[in-house]
This record gives sequence, C-alpha cells and structure tokens, in this order.
Amino acid sequence: MTSPSSLHLAVCDYPEHVPRDRWEAYARQQKELGLSFVRIAEFAWSRMEPREGQFEWSWLDDAVNVLHEAGLGVVLCTPTATPPAWLIRQHPEILPYDEFGRVRAFGSRRHYDFASPVYRAHSRRITRALAERYGQHPGLVGWQTDNEFGCHGTARSFGGASAAAFPAWLEKKYGTLDALNEAWGNVFWSMEYTAWEQIGPPNLTVTEANPSHVLDYARFCSDMIVEFQEQQVAILRELSPGRFVTHNFMIFESGFDHYRVSACLDFPTWDNYPTGMLEHFGKWVGEDLKTYYARTGHPDAIAFNHDLYRGLMRRPFWVMEQQCGQVNWAPYNPLPADGAVSLWTTQAWAHGADCVSYFRWRAATMAQEVLHSGLLRHDETPDRGFFEVERLKREDLVLGDVPAKVALLHDYESLWVLDQQPHGGPAYWEQTSSYYTALRSLGIDVEIVHPDAHLSRFALVVAPSLTMISDARLEKLRGDAAGRAFVFGPRTAFRTASGRAHENGQFGNFKTFFGARVLNFESLRPGLTIKAGGHEVTTWAEGYEPLEGAEVLAHYEGGPLEGAAAAVRHGQVVTIGANSTGLVWETLYRLAGELGLNPTPLPPGIRVSRRGGRTLVQNWNPERVTFEGRELGPVSWTLV
Amino acid sequence: MTSPSSLHLAVCDYPEHVPRDRWEAYARQQKELGLSFVRIAEFAWSRMEPREGQFEWSWLDDAVNVLHEAGLGVVLCTPTATPPAWLIRQHPEILPYDEFGRVRAFGSRRHYDFASPVYRAHSRRITRALAERYGQHPGLVGWQTDNEFGCHGTARSFGGASAAAFPAWLEKKYGTLDALNEAWGNVFWSMEYTAWEQIGPPNLTVTEANPSHVLDYARFCSDMIVEFQEQQVAILRELSPGRFVTHNFMIFESGFDHYRVSACLDFPTWDNYPTGMLEHFGKWVGEDLKTYYARTGHPDAIAFNHDLYRGLMRRPFWVMEQQCGQVNWAPYNPLPADGAVSLWTTQAWAHGADCVSYFRWRAATMAQEVLHSGLLRHDETPDRGFFEVERLKREDLVLGDVPAKVALLHDYESLWVLDQQPHGGPAYWEQTSSYYTALRSLGIDVEIVHPDAHLSRFALVVAPSLTMISDARLEKLRGDAAGRAFVFGPRTAFRTASGRAHENGQFGNFKTFFGARVLNFESLRPGLTIKAGGHEVTTWAEGYEPLEGAEVLAHYEGGPLEGAAAAVRHGQVVTIGANSTGLVWETLYRLAGELGLNPTPLPPGIRVSRRGGRTLVQNWNPERVTFEGRELGPVSWTLV
Amino acid sequence: MTSPSSLHLAVCDYPEHVPRDRWEAYARQQKELGLSFVRIAEFAWSRMEPREGQFEWSWLDDAVNVLHEAGLGVVLCTPTATPPAWLIRQHPEILPYDEFGRVRAFGSRRHYDFASPVYRAHSRRITRALAERYGQHPGLVGWQTDNEFGCHGTARSFGGASAAAFPAWLEKKYGTLDALNEAWGNVFWSMEYTAWEQIGPPNLTVTEANPSHVLDYARFCSDMIVEFQEQQVAILRELSPGRFVTHNFMIFESGFDHYRVSACLDFPTWDNYPTGMLEHFGKWVGEDLKTYYARTGHPDAIAFNHDLYRGLMRRPFWVMEQQCGQVNWAPYNPLPADGAVSLWTTQAWAHGADCVSYFRWRAATMAQEVLHSGLLRHDETPDRGFFEVERLKREDLVLGDVPAKVALLHDYESLWVLDQQPHGGPAYWEQTSSYYTALRSLGIDVEIVHPDAHLSRFALVVAPSLTMISDARLEKLRGDAAGRAFVFGPRTAFRTASGRAHENGQFGNFKTFFGARVLNFESLRPGLTIKAGGHEVTTWAEGYEPLEGAEVLAHYEGGPLEGAAAAVRHGQVVTIGANSTGLVWETLYRLAGELGLNPTPLPPGIRVSRRGGRTLVQNWNPERVTFEGRELGPVSWTLV
Repeated sequence: MTSPSSLHLAVCDYPEHVPRDRWEAYARQQKELGLSFVRIAEFAWSRMEPREGQFEWSWLDDAVNVLHEAGLGVVLCTPTATPPAWLIRQHPEILPYDEFGRVRAFGSRRHYDFASPVYRAHSRRITRALAERYGQHPGLVGWQTDNEFGCHGTARSFGGASAAAFPAWLEKKYGTLDALNEAWGNVFWSMEYTAWEQIGPPNLTVTEANPSHVLDYARFCSDMIVEFQEQQVAILRELSPGRFVTHNFMIFESGFDHYRVSACLDFPTWDNYPTGMLEHFGKWVGEDLKTYYARTGHPDAIAFNHDLYRGLMRRPFWVMEQQCGQVNWAPYNPLPADGAVSLWTTQAWAHGADCVSYFRWRAATMAQEVLHSGLLRHDETPDRGFFEVERLKREDLVLGDVPAKVALLHDYESLWVLDQQPHGGPAYWEQTSSYYTALRSLGIDVEIVHPDAHLSRFALVVAPSLTMISDARLEKLRGDAAGRAFVFGPRTAFRTASGRAHENGQFGNFKTFFGARVLNFESLRPGLTIKAGGHEVTTWAEGYEPLEGAEVLAHYEGGPLEGAAAAVRHGQVVTIGANSTGLVWETLYRLAGELGLNPTPLPPGIRVSRRGGRTLVQNWNPERVTFEGRELGPVSWTLV
Repeated sequence: MTSPSSLHLAVCDYPEHVPRDRWEAYARQQKELGLSFVRIAEFAWSRMEPREGQFEWSWLDDAVNVLHEAGLGVVLCTPTATPPAWLIRQHPEILPYDEFGRVRAFGSRRHYDFASPVYRAHSRRITRALAERYGQHPGLVGWQTDNEFGCHGTARSFGGASAAAFPAWLEKKYGTLDALNEAWGNVFWSMEYTAWEQIGPPNLTVTEANPSHVLDYARFCSDMIVEFQEQQVAILRELSPGRFVTHNFMIFESGFDHYRVSACLDFPTWDNYPTGMLEHFGKWVGEDLKTYYARTGHPDAIAFNHDLYRGLMRRPFWVMEQQCGQVNWAPYNPLPADGAVSLWTTQAWAHGADCVSYFRWRAATMAQEVLHSGLLRHDETPDRGFFEVERLKREDLVLGDVPAKVALLHDYESLWVLDQQPHGGPAYWEQTSSYYTALRSLGIDVEIVHPDAHLSRFALVVAPSLTMISDARLEKLRGDAAGRAFVFGPRTAFRTASGRAHENGQFGNFKTFFGARVLNFESLRPGLTIKAGGHEVTTWAEGYEPLEGAEVLAHYEGGPLEGAAAAVRHGQVVTIGANSTGLVWETLYRLAGELGLNPTPLPPGIRVSRRGGRTLVQNWNPERVTFEGRELGPVSWTLV
Repeated sequence: MTSPSSLHLAVCDYPEHVPRDRWEAYARQQKELGLSFVRIAEFAWSRMEPREGQFEWSWLDDAVNVLHEAGLGVVLCTPTATPPAWLIRQHPEILPYDEFGRVRAFGSRRHYDFASPVYRAHSRRITRALAERYGQHPGLVGWQTDNEFGCHGTARSFGGASAAAFPAWLEKKYGTLDALNEAWGNVFWSMEYTAWEQIGPPNLTVTEANPSHVLDYARFCSDMIVEFQEQQVAILRELSPGRFVTHNFMIFESGFDHYRVSACLDFPTWDNYPTGMLEHFGKWVGEDLKTYYARTGHPDAIAFNHDLYRGLMRRPFWVMEQQCGQVNWAPYNPLPADGAVSLWTTQAWAHGADCVSYFRWRAATMAQEVLHSGLLRHDETPDRGFFEVERLKREDLVLGDVPAKVALLHDYESLWVLDQQPHGGPAYWEQTSSYYTALRSLGIDVEIVHPDAHLSRFALVVAPSLTMISDARLEKLRGDAAGRAFVFGPRTAFRTASGRAHENGQFGNFKTFFGARVLNFESLRPGLTIKAGGHEVTTWAEGYEPLEGAEVLAHYEGGPLEGAAAAVRHGQVVTIGANSTGLVWETLYRLAGELGLNPTPLPPGIRVSRRGGRTLVQNWNPERVTFEGRELGPVSWTLV
C-alpha cells in the first residue's frame, strides 16, 4: 500500500449481487466520488467454487479487472465466513455448537467451528486457490481475512471440534492433571479430573461452572481463532507479497484476544456502525442517552473503538465498514442525522484512520440485509450518505500522529474474568469506558494499549479494570511508574493467572505498589447507594486500608464501609475502589492538571480530537452549540 | 343446516367428561335455554378408539341420540387435535419439532406434524370411521375438523416430517435450484444450494435465516395444513352429504393462510375469548387499555376478527366457542363484567354471525382447564353467564347482511414478511388494526377481505399493510381504483413475491399508481418521535417524493425526513407512510366524508354495528354513558 | 449430641482447601472464638476416593483428629452432592435432565439424578466407607447427608433415570391404568394411557401438561429424594450409633416434601443467607423493600424459615450455614450491615435454633465462590463477621421452648398445586407469607406445622393456602376446631388428592365446615382492583355465598363480585377469599384479641420473638428507633 498524505475513502461492494452490466458504471461512479479502494468477494465462496474443486474465476476476473481499469485498488477477502452448502452437508462436523448444546445450522453465516481440522483444511484450500489466482494482480492492494470474527457469538463453540480439541490444549498448557486441578482449584466441589478426556466445555453445568475452567476455555477458543487465521495469512504472505493483510474487527467484541489475533496482520481495521450498535450497548448507555444519540451514536463509544484499534498494533488503522445510512439489524433502525456520515468520517480520521470504507455501495435487494442502506438506494439513485461523501474535502484530512499523552490499559483476560463473575458489579466495558468518557469529556486524547506495551511516551496511564496482574506485569508497571502517573480502578490485581484469588488477599504481593490492602468489597443494587468524597457511589464499592506513605483521597460515607478509603494515592499511583462517575472525573481532572495535560471540561456532546497538528471540534448534539466562540451546527464538525 | 331467521345459540359439550346419568338432564336444560346445537366429541379419540382398530361407539351413539331426541342438532368433530398415547408411542415420528429443535412431547394436545404421512393416514382412518358411523345420522347438522389449527405455535414444525417434506415442495415450486437460489437471493452469503436435500427448515441458524427462506417455509407449512384438512373434508363430503363442514379458527392467528385453509369448507367459525386474548395482545393494546377493558376485552380486537371471518369466505360465520365466564389460560383471568356475555353475543350477531356457541356447558372438573368456567359451575348450578344467555331475546337478532361500504385488505403473506423482518417497525396486526380502529371509532362498518377479492360493492378500500403486491394484483387493484377510493399504509408494495426488494425501489413498477417514489424509511425507538402534518409519528416513518399529479397531504417535520411527503394522494389513491394514529384518523375521516360514508366520531368505548337494517349501539365502558340522547348502562347494548 | 443449656456456635470448614500447615492454628482460633462444632468434608469425594475404590483417608484422619484434639466436635458430611469426574465419565447415566430435555453436565455440583440405581449404589458405597472409618470416632458428633437437596433446581430430573422409574412408581400407586386415567382426568384431551411405559415426565409438551400429571411427578421426585437419603441414613445408623443425622435444607425450597424427607433424621438444619436470598424472592417483596433490607434481609422471610424448620419435626433445629459477610451468588452482593451477623444469630436462637454454624471459616481463594466471604478474609485476617461473633455473649442465649400459641399450616402438595397452575393468582409462598407477616407485625409467635400435625397447644390455627384437604384431613381439622379458632385463605379445599376439582364445587363436601359455598373466583391484573370491607383487593378474589349460621365479615365492593362475601365466619372458622393485606391484618388482629393472644401492632422493622421465658426485641431498620421506651440502635437487638 502506498503511504497516502490524506485520508483515503473506499467502499464495500458485491458485484455478484447485481447484474454484470452494472459493473463498469459502478466503478466509474466510485472513482468519480473520490474513492481509492473497493473491497469485494467477501462472502462469495459459492460463486468461486460452486461445487468442490470446481472453481469459477471468470466473473471475479472481470470484477477485479473492471475496478483496476477504473483506477481503483482492490481489496479481496477470503470467503471463509460463509462455507457453502455442499461443504457443510458433506462435513456437518464443521458446524459449531451454542452454549445450550445445540448445533448451529447452515442458513446464514459464520457456521463453523474454528477448531475443526476439516474446516481448516478447506479454509487453506480456498485461500490458496484465491491467492494463486489474484495474489499478484496489479490491481490488488490487500487482503481481508474472513469477516468479523466472533460476530453472532461465534467466538466460542461448545461442542464438536472445539470440545474435542480442548483437552490437548490443556495438556500442553498444564503438563499434568495435578497442575490443572491446582490451578483451577478443582478440589472446591470435587471437580478434580483424573484423565484429560474427562474435561469438556464449561456449559450446561448444573450451576455456574468453575470460573477458572471458563477462563481457560475463553483462552483456548481465542487461540483457535489465532491458529485459524494464521494458516490463511501464511498462504497470503507466500503467494501475495507486497500486499497488506488485515481483518475487520468489531465494536466492543469480547470473544477473543484481539492483540494475539492481530499479531500476524499488517494493520487492523474495524466495522463502525454507530447507530446500530448503540441499541446493543449495555446499561451504561441509558435509555435517555440512547434516544438522544439515536441518529449519531454515542461519540465516546465510537471514539473508544477508534483508539482501541489505533492502539492495537500501535499504528494507523482503517474503518473497513462505515455505516452510511440506516442499518437493518438493530432493534430500531433510524436514519442517521444530516451530517452524521461526514462527522463519523472525520472523527475516524482524527482518531488515526488512514482509510474509511463505506458499507456498502448499493443497498442489497435481497436476503438478510434487504432493508439495509448503501451509498446507492435499491433503485440505484444516490442516497443521503452519498451526498455527504461527495461534499467531503478529504484533502484537508491530512494523515499524521495522534498526540495522545494518556494511555488506557486494556486486557481481554481481565475482561473475561470480570464478565464471567460480575458479582453484581459493573461489566468490564462499562467500568472501563466510564474512565474513557471522563477523559474525553476533559478534552484529552487517549490511546488504548495492552498493559504490557511500552508506555514511555505517556504522561498518565489509566488502568480502569486491570484485574489480572502477574508478578512480571507488575514489575514492568513498577518500572513505568517511575516516569508517569497511574490511575487504577476497582478490582485491580484481584485474581491470579488462573483466576483464583491471591492467598494473601487483594493486590497479592503488590500492596506496597498500590499503598493499600483491601478490606472489603461489595456490589450495590439499584437504589442502594453510598458516598465517597461527597460523590455518589453505585454498583460497586471496595474499601482500602492505606499503608504507610499512602494518602487517602476519599473516604466512604454511609454503609458498612463508612470511614474506609475509597481512593488512595501512593506516590504517582492512584487507586479508586468506588464506582463513582463524580469521583473518577474529579480525580482525573486534578491529576491531569497536575501533570500539565491541560484538561478542559467540555459541554455535553462536544468533543475535540487531535491529529497531525490539527484539532477536530465535533458537535454531536442535535442542536446548534456555541463553543469557544465558534458556532457549531447540529451534528457537525470544524477543523481548527 | 337450515336457514335460520334469527341468531342461533349453541354450546360445546363433552359428555365423556361427566357421568352417563347426567346426559339427559343436560340435554333438556340446553334445549330449555334456547340452544339449537351442541358440539361434541372434539377431543375424544381415546374414547372412540381406545386401542388401534378397536372402536367403541356405544357411548357416542348414546350421546348423539340423547341430544337428537332432545331436539338439539349435533355438530361432530374429527378428534385429530389429540392423537392418543398408543398411536404416538407406536409412531413417535408423528411428533412435531419446535424452533429450538426439540421434539414436542405427548401430554397435552396438538402434538403432531401436519406433514406426517403416517399421521395423515391415521387422520383419514379415524375420520372415515367416524363419518361412516354418524355421517347420515338424522341429528347430525355438521362437522368441525380438528380444533384450532396453529394453536400453541403448532402451525410450523421445524424438523421431522416437515423437514423431510420441504425439499420436494420447493422442487415442485421452483423446478430448478438456480431458480430457487435466484428467488431467495442466496448468493448474498454463499447460501446457494446444489442439491434439494441440502435445504432444511430456517431455524437454529447462527444469525437470522434468509427471510425468503423463512417466507417459503411459512408457505410450505400453511400448505401442509391445507392438505391435511382437505383429506378429512373429502371423506366427510363423501360419507356425510348435506351436512356442513367447518373449522374453528382463532383470534389473530398468524401461522397459516386462512383463505387457503378455509377454501374447502362451507363457512368458517372462530373461537372468541375476549378477556383471555386481551392479555396476549402485543404492545398495540397498552397496559392502561388492558386494565380498562380487562372485563370485556377490547371491542375492536373482537370486531376485527368477526369482520375477518365474515369476509374470509364472504358469507356468515359462526362463533364456535364463545367465552361465557373466566378463562384459565391467560396470565390474569378476571371475571367478565355483568353484561359482557350478552354484549359479546349481540356484537357477534351484528358483525354477521349466524350462530354463537358457548364454551362450555359445564366447567371441567379435571385436567388443564380445571379452573375454566362454563355455563354451569363445577357443582352444576347455573353460573353468571347462563343467566345472561337466558335473558337474551334472540328473536330480535334477525339475520341479514352487514352493509359494509369499506373493505380492509388483509393478506397472510404480507403478515409473514412484515413480522419476520420487523426492522423495528410495528407488527402487522398492530399496523393493520390501527386503521381498523380508526374506522370503527368513526362509526363505519368494515369488511376484511383478501386483496384479490372482488371489491365492487365497496366505496373505500383500506390496505394498511399490503407489502406484497404482484404485477397481477396491482393490475386488478388499478381496475378497482377506477370506481372507489384507496388508502394504503407504510411499507406498501415493498417486496417481491419471493421476499426480495424491487430492483427499482419501493413501489417497484407501480410508482405511477401510487403517485410517488420512496426516498427513505426508518424505525424510531420509543422516545424518538417526529411529526407529520402536525400529528405525532412513532415507530415508523417512510418519506415519499410525489410524482407529477400527486398531492402531498402531509409533510414530515423534524428528523432527516424533514420536508419529505408523509402522505400523498394520487387521484383516489392515498398512501400514508407515517405510523401516526392522528394522521390516519384524520385522513380516513376526511376521505370517508368526501365519499358520503357519513363518518361519525364516537366517544371512547362506544361502538355501532349494523346488520339487516338494524343498528346495535354498544357501550363497552364500565360506566354509564349518554350517547345521542340514549342512556347506556355500563357494558350494555341497545338495538336501534 | 449433648443437651446444651445455651446456644452453640459452629463453623463450616474445608481443610482440603488450604495447606496442611494451617489446620492446627485454625482449630485453635475456632476454639478461642467459642465455637463448639466444625462441619467438614462436605464436597470432598474426589479427595476421599481419587479413583474408584482407591480411598485416601490420611488427610481426613488428620483433619478430624486436629479438630478433636482442639476440643471441637466434628460434623461429617456424606459427599454425595459432588460425584467426582471419574464416576460421571464412567456412568454418564447418573446425570440429570433439565425441563428442556438437556443433560445437565459435570462441572459444578448436584449433577445426579436421585432415582439413578447406579448412583444410589455409589452413594451407599461412599457412605459406608466413610461411616466405617469415622462412625465411632470420639470427636464425631453427627452427620449431614449430602448438601442442600434441590438446590439449582435439582429436585426434579426430566429424563434418564427418573423418567425410567416413573411408570413403576405410578403402577404401584394406582394399580390400574383405569385408576390413573380417572384420577388425572386423562379423558380431557384424549391423554388416556394404555400401557405404563407410555407415561413420561410432564415436560416439553406442546402446551401445559395435565396438572395432575405434574402433581404426581412432583410427588414421585420427592419420593426419590426420600429413598435416596434413607439409604444413606440406614448405613449411618448402623455404623455410627449415638451420633445425630441431619440434612441442611434451604430457604423456601419447594421441590420436595420436607416433612417426608426429614422423617428419618434426628433434627433438621437449614442454611440461612438473608441478603443473598432477598434478591431471589418473588414479587411479594417489592423493589423498595429489597433496597431497604438489602443489608439485613427481610426479617419475616428469615423468621418464617426458622419457624418452618422448628415446626418441621416439632423440635429445635440448627442453622447449619449462617451467612457472616457478603455472598457471591446473588445478582447484587452488598456487605451486611454492622450488627447483622449478631442479629441473625440471636434471631435464630429466639426462633428455636440450638446451634448456629457460620459459613465459612476462611473465604475460599478459588473456584465458584472465590468472591464469597468467611469469618476470615482471603488473607486470613479476621473479617467483620468474626468480630461480631467474638462479641456475642452466647451464655445469655439460654435454650428453651418457643411459646407459640398460633400455628400456621403448611403443605408442600398445596404448594405444588397452586404454583403449577397459578391462574394469575399469588404464588403459594407469597400468599402464605402474607399471613405470616401479618402475625409477626402483631408481635405474635408462630409455629409452622403440617396440616395433619397435632394442634392441641395452639389457640389459633392459620391455614393461608391449604388447597389440598382430603376427607380424612378435614375430619381431623373439624376435631381441632372444637377447641380453637381457624383462619383459612383463598383457594382452600379447592382440589382433590389427584388435583381435580370437586364434582360438587369448591369446599367439596366441606361446605358446612366453612359455612359457605364458592360462587366465583378471579385473578386481577396489576391496576385492576376491587375492595372488600373497605380494604384493597389485588391479584385474587373469591366470592362466597354464606350458608345458614355463617356471618359475613366483609363484602366485595366493585366488579362482578359486588355484594358477594369476601370473608365469612362460621363459629370459630373464618375463611378469607380476598387477597387483601388490609383485610387479613384486620381479621387476624380482631380474632387474636378475642382469643386473648394480646396482639400488639409493631412499628415497621421492629420484631419481637420469645424463647425460654425471654423476649428478643429486634430492630431491623437501618435507623435508630425508640420502641416501648427503649432506644434501639440501627440493626440491633436487646434481650428482655
């Protein structure tokens, strides 16, 4: 891929969905709209290989050539998200199982088990065939593997091939059953195993399964995705040198470790459907906010994912699918506000995207997404989003660095541990994004990185939900803490690598780092609240006893934790045990000020994001707002 | 059946549930109460044939004779809703599958798959045996097939016999797999089939199945019911000439095409449980209205079904089961208001019923309905409903035509398409009944008919939810439109026969008929509203661009559809794209006035219905109301 | 067990969960804390018998000896709640089935079917091995069988071994299929059986199963638990003479007949988790009360269970597991209020407990309960509950009789009948506990007993939900009624022994006893209310016609029951048909006063309980309250 100097635009297209006589005209229109790339062939296995071993390339030859001749770069996809009917009927053992023990049937997409050796062989076979044909085509700029790993709850299969492969994965990890039984604490309910083959997936148990069992199953399933993709990528590297390889990840997807799955890629991409996903968010976006942002999506939820994927490999990313009209798969599917497509595009740029690719060219006239929009309507006339793209001056959106001085540490293992045993407390994404939103509302740029990443360029590191901290990780963080401030959230350093509690209580061997030991923790039902430092605490409270040299930033008021520390500071390390929007905001505001990060409280719905020396000021409100002397129209942006 | 000059009354009775020594006394009481007919033997297979081939007719001989001798006409039922244990254990392949892939077990009723060849053979066998025995009995007036097709979600079985029969049905319909793949748009996610046997029911897919697949499965299952019943009816016609054959349908049942299933009958009947079904209604009857009408049911929901079944075959119908006390199967089971049984009976008459048959004679003292009421209590004393029936002067309720000048078009395929992909919009029944309620609140009589029915006697045709309009159907409607006005609702003419969108956008080739093209559509979450012509729009909005010669009746205000047409009029064809109670009411009020239909806004809970030159004025309110100078007691009626 | 003169304290401990080097120190600490007993080995099968037939006793020898040498009495458990992996993999037919037909898998606990002959053999085998080894150990004071029968919905298995055993149980009960078909009313929907083998569990039926079928399945499953436990108890009696045998029952557990299951025990115990169970209660504890009592639990819900288990065998009981900090398995898990552990302990004493055993010694650092508290924290420091136990002066809590003059009749068969066909009315526990709460709020001590128990020492007998009254039971009650007053609730004497209605209506042959016949009953949706005697009636109303000699205590006002009797009195027998908190309270207040029971309306959250001549005054409010001149701190008690 060339190194562009301003934002590229692209589109997802499905030539096989429309008559052949449309292709040249579409390509011409795409080029005229200012697009650089077109992603094709995403789900087209049944057209590439209508019967086993019988390949049909002529249509795809045409499609690639038409785009290339129009001056558009082509992104091809391995079509493995949709194994065709002939393959499934011949090998039903490819099918995944849901958590209720049912086979998930053919008839939509993603109907395969990542661990299936049969499917992996076919995945390699079709990847090789495709890469041999197009790997060195002059129009080809890159590859997308499969599509949206984990979508529709497919990251984990609870039977079949995955169940068969799990024991060997465990044996490789633990070596002996004694080690596994000890790591999982299987003595607890006589759950000790005496043969590897006794161990199944942790579903359909009478009551909840052992959380250590659940945690290792999550790791195992994530590893199966890593292996599945690596096999495709090895073939693409071999047969298609010089082209990028990426995958299109999803918003807040939790089913696998994105750091490990992306390791073999050139850069990550993600699929950004702001209004559609708003309805899928948990309770941390309340009904009122869902209505308020119904036509734009929530600015911080989108920004969080931009910053997550920019931080994933510490390099620029793409938005591979960008909503440009109504979607069809949410409980409610309103039209985006006037200006929303433009705002989403520039926000993506400001958070580090090098390319934004709209989904999709023409609205599908068939099947599951027949009510979904595209840049063109069903009748091929330009839809509302088309005109917003046409009006965009992408040359103003020059590429460059995002100057984030604040890192937010994010870790999928901590996510799995917290969400499988929430104990009534906030979910991982809820707790984590509450810190992110506080930072954004202070006008601060953030990069979301793995806890083991190099942190040298950050002045402040926020770790809202880092419940998994090994000795090695702590040693590293201790080193990092020499040069920068840290803020930790509730349930930090609570669990060991296998999901047990530390034998010596919370913070384990790390009490001197945090400057505290935990006294008690509790979750609070709606309506039951206490206070900390004058701020309301909901859902979760964790009380600390400060150690010598530590300062108590806030005490609890009310409830059994009365008088215990709700937040402590030990040198540059702050730990907040209370789930309290107010306390988090105040703590970050003061600390950021102290660190010279110039925190600036923003009005609701106003956000600022910086890239390459420019600042994008965004108004996400459906009303006009005056901010710092500038008048901002409803759902609009300005570049400063 | 003789042609009665006033309303007949009847009752459902189960002699096999009570000791033999009660039968004569019950028959005498039934006659004295003024009943004409008694329906018996509905679920009595295990008594007719306790073991395979071993028939026991003597008890049923007695039952039929006792009724006949008391001067009561007998309606017999084929008992196929309840295959006995011996049959199921011998042929478990008769059992249906639920959508989660589980076999639905013996132990209640309706435990059979309509497509089962084994069960069809037994269905024919018991029907023949019964018809041979009683087909020409002088006391026999008619037959009811089975009971309540589709009840308990049994219209569709997702496995077993239905799964086995589906591919052949598809092959017969499409001829080639290419045709099927094209019709369904299977290319969309590589869902293309290469062998008929690859195609299964559309359940347990990873995410939603192809809606065209779902639609054809609905059609297939409906056809299985048609075939199942036709086989019984052929035998009854052969062995029981001169007797009517009917089936007792249900309220708002959606699982099959009632027009096709009723085609082989003499007239339809339906089972009217006003309070019980009120709790089962969707959100379009809100909690407040459910409480307000808890003791009567909602007048328009009942009337809708009367008008639906009168229009089904364009002839008078029966209410085969009429609630006459509390039911036992709803979430809450209040006693009907004083007067409700009388009101329900006269309302049925006014909407075209020739007979109302109460369910049931004596309250069951056993099994699933042990808490259900009857005309007699458990202890055989007359219950509250009995006395209301006794006081009815049925001779005032003379039979005759319902002078409806307004037709409402109803179509099960449109229902299936809308409800399987609601996209956040209103459900079919909700959208359809909002137009019906508007008409009823204007005092207008309505007939509900199939969109392909002759419409010559109507002045106004309302098609609230006709999303399926083929070229042929449109040609017919275009002809109809010459002589009358039309009102269409949102999502009209949106989908092709196989459930795809038109390649040239909404209204397809019919834009000149409607005088508009569709710009955009959207669904609105609760709390997100816009306006159209000053009226509030909720849930769904569809914006039009008027074509030349069309008049815009209302524009959208607010939201991305601002300024687009919410309702257009093209000659006598009005199309309303907004889900707006106010706009629908206003549009119908004006148009009905223009057409000389004399719309008369009624107070809440007051309804008028006309038959045979008389007008039934009904007060459904629990309070006294003065209307047009008449004082109407709570829950009462008067004949004008 | 010795007969102690004051309350004993104890703890549940799991030596196998901690390193061997902790055991002596823990025992010493336990003794110093004033504990008398330690319960161990509850789930330790995989440590007792790591492989089939290979027993490992040395660790348990040590554990028992260490406790004994420290002066602590040992309670051992049969470990059958947790069959180990090797047994399940060898005999998967042991596993139970859920109501959806799925096998419930290994991986937590209670994964067995009580009816399994294979599992029963292994249950006897491990019980015998354990009893042979420790049955006569001088430190052993008693045995607990298994753990919490029925927990996680395990009382009933819907397949496998239970399905196989059900027909024989039925044949033994009914003798002939004709008798069974008649008892169940199987003629209703042709559900008549012609072979015992045709009869399966009542799940997965198309619509609800026959309630008589469901009722007998409940009885059968309860009997399987009886048999399962009796086999263990016979072995313990044989090999461990002089030690008590008990089982730890649960709060409001409904899955089996506790009277029958406890018959072979010496005394019952139960597991008291006040805050955890509060979240699990149904709607009869509203959201506001759940928040108000979030840190203590609801006083009457706890007291009800104390009185239930004291009445179960008419003797003192133990609390075998007493919450002493936060639990981890409720939707929300707040910390108990300061003082709550002390209050719970003394309340248990006042209601007849001879021993309170805390759960658990040290918080588990592993597995499913890793976030649960104990007397010690994870880090082995004493937690908040520890200090409350330390401060308790248990010598003040002298044992003695609870002087209850009021009996509340409770019957599991009535519970099953009401809850399987609620008809929209209140659930059994809701209806029953509303009477209990009324009595408690009047300061009255209550004993909960079986309806067939001797009632001679009671002045007032309250039977809130006795829907099952056989002729024999009525004869006995009629005798009891000679010397005391009775109050019955709605739906009394409604059903026959097999779950049918009486052929002669409600009250069957007992109308002269109650002085009334039932006219009608109804359930009321939320928002639909009527009145009775000026009090609001919700959810359920039952109207009576008084017989000669009966007095109407309250009439209905509003609704179809207008003017009917809502409560009647016939001599000393009062029957209340309305679900009305106010009417129940008023009726009980007046009657208790008339009977000289000195009812004393208490302020909210204040409760009094009497034992052995002393009165425990309890303040369950989170605020200070002045009551009868005494100032009571928040969540506190005083002994008078």
